Amino acid sequence: MMNTQVLLKRRPQGAPVAEDFEAVDNAMPQINEGQALIKNQYISMDAGFRNWMDEGAGDDVLPAMALGEPVMGLTVGEVQESRHPTLKAGDLVMGRLAWERYSIASDDFLVVLETHEQNVPTHYHLGILGDTGMSAYFGLTDIGQPAANETVLISAAGGAVGYVAGQIAKIMGAARVVGLTSSDAKGERLKAELGYDDFINYRQPNLEAAFQSACPEGIDVYFDNVGGPILETVLNHINVAARIPFCGAVADYSNPRPVGPPNLFQIVTNSVRLQGFMTHLQVSRYPEARAQLMTWLNQGQLSSVTQEYAGVSQCGTAFADLFAGKNFGKTIVAVDH
Amino acid sequence: MMNTQVLLKRRPQGAPVAEDFEAVDNAMPQINEGQALIKNQYISMDAGFRNWMDEGAGDDVLPAMALGEPVMGLTVGEVQESRHPTLKAGDLVMGRLAWERYSIASDDFLVVLETHEQNVPTHYHLGILGDTGMSAYFGLTDIGQPAANETVLISAAGGAVGYVAGQIAKIMGAARVVGLTSSDAKGERLKAELGYDDFINYRQPNLEAAFQSACPEGIDVYFDNVGGPILETVLNHINVAARIPFCGAVADYSNPRPVGPPNLFQIVTNSVRLQGFMTHLQVSRYPEARAQLMTWLNQGQLSSVTQEYAGVSQCGTAFADLFAGKNFGKTIVAVDH
Repeated sequence: MMNTQVLLKRRPQGAPVAEDFEAVDNAMPQINEGQALIKNQYISMDAGFRNWMDEGAGDDVLPAMALGEPVMGLTVGEVQESRHPTLKAGDLVMGRLAWERYSIASDDFLVVLETHEQNVPTHYHLGILGDTGMSAYFGLTDIGQPAANETVLISAAGGAVGYVAGQIAKIMGAARVVGLTSSDAKGERLKAELGYDDFINYRQPNLEAAFQSACPEGIDVYFDNVGGPILETVLNHINVAARIPFCGAVADYSNPRPVGPPNLFQIVTNSVRLQGFMTHLQVSRYPEARAQLMTWLNQGQLSSVTQEYAGVSQCGTAFADLFAGKNFGKTIVAVDH
Repeated sequence: MMNTQVLLKRRPQGAPVAEDFEAVDNAMPQINEGQALIKNQYISMDAGFRNWMDEGAGDDVLPAMALGEPVMGLTVGEVQESRHPTLKAGDLVMGRLAWERYSIASDDFLVVLETHEQNVPTHYHLGILGDTGMSAYFGLTDIGQPAANETVLISAAGGAVGYVAGQIAKIMGAARVVGLTSSDAKGERLKAELGYDDFINYRQPNLEAAFQSACPEGIDVYFDNVGGPILETVLNHINVAARIPFCGAVADYSNPRPVGPPNLFQIVTNSVRLQGFMTHLQVSRYPEARAQLMTWLNQGQLSSVTQEYAGVSQCGTAFADLFAGKNFGKTIVAVDH
């Protein structure tokens, strides 16, 4: 039996492409005392990991990924064999492991899923009940707080955070939920499957007219989970006392010299609140967030949507597709297929 | 008797210069039924009025200033003669009038100072008890909220808002208050006269080192009342959970194509709150703000500092000096000298 791993073959220039990665078959790893062998089930594709692919990126705690090594990633899997003091065979775990079929675990970047967390598909813990679902939850409930007569605009609305955020905005009672997407096809899916009222394809030539048409009453909440130049157009349509939960900068990850919006004065003249947040800084509130999301899932108010790639060797393609805007919902790789 | 008026001679290109304005002596205005004649005492110099000097600026309610007409401005003065239904001779009034010795008032842009507001120098109502003082107050008490161990950085710290904001931050107990200034001389005055702990001259070549030295523990509150490119450097030194009260964009008023900071992702990674606000949207809270500012003034915790120009004909020079960064404290013109 071999361990399929996907290595960082070369450092991406700007947006990652599939050729930056290489799938190889290596010998099965052996565990030592204090370690456990994890058989990964699903691997999460998260744009944020792009940050650690640059030379000299990261810090002492979490340095840049090494060339020729398995790509660091977030996975869920099952403990296969253990010489670890607390992990035992059969445990379902989630953690920062790697793009590979089998991982060795010995550190703290791992949580064991509790029994009550196991009656949903395990990949939910990478998506709608994981960081991306909770980002949508915290951003809207803490900062966005849409009122009943308000318009909510969601960036990267077909993405892992955005597709959940739009649904939550609707659950919270927002009058109008509009998604920014990179294609009409994704926009139509948002409307048909997820309750969005309208969408704006940001790749069209006449963005101003599209904003006027999709957000005729202006924008009260802009959930920005992607960053980038679209913020300028949004600020031209922002309402007084608007809130901007700001939780991602995907657009900047692969841009060597991003430029900020020239019209930040709109934030002043409209008394706008632009509030950055990082979900992982709210660990103490994860149970609250997960419980609410589970309730909405069970009530059928919230849907999980995934774009699933078959086989660990597809990780590179899946990651590149994520940056190419090809995906809808949460992107995951099913290790076995 | 003549009425000295300062006219908008030409529309400023970028930062206003004294030659954009012209002082002339015109005939005294005559009041009609429903009007009052105001003898202006002080004229406030506010960068914000620059916005109405451009061709096509403003809106239906408040259109662009007309060429060849007296420059619109904020003044305090005394009712000299009245055929107005509520104003009476001797009333002290503040309002949006013009750069001139005598004004005709007939509209709503005027408030009568109450008796208890008259036991301070009248020009306080243009400065420390006016919009600029209240901007400092609202920005720090509503948004900045410095804690005892925190560092507060104030932009344009020698300006009409900044010199008050730094004092309030100290009153609120901030550990360290640092001012951004355009000269060492102003920085030294902040330390000697207003309790600032340190300053950064933003015109120096090594800005990074200056930030390191003046804000060794990073920045918890950045009171930005000027806008402009310095925000990029600030964001590189911002602490987790920092607050940025954002209330002005002087730097952008005269910049035809401002550029936003390229590192807005710092707002995400540090969970920063960037909150725009406009003091005039908080009219209902003016009494609260003025009462607190008066208390601090009476207790000697807060000082009023003005840069006073002698004579209404100096308005153009005073306004130009404001943009040239020559002034310290609140800039006012004493109409008679």
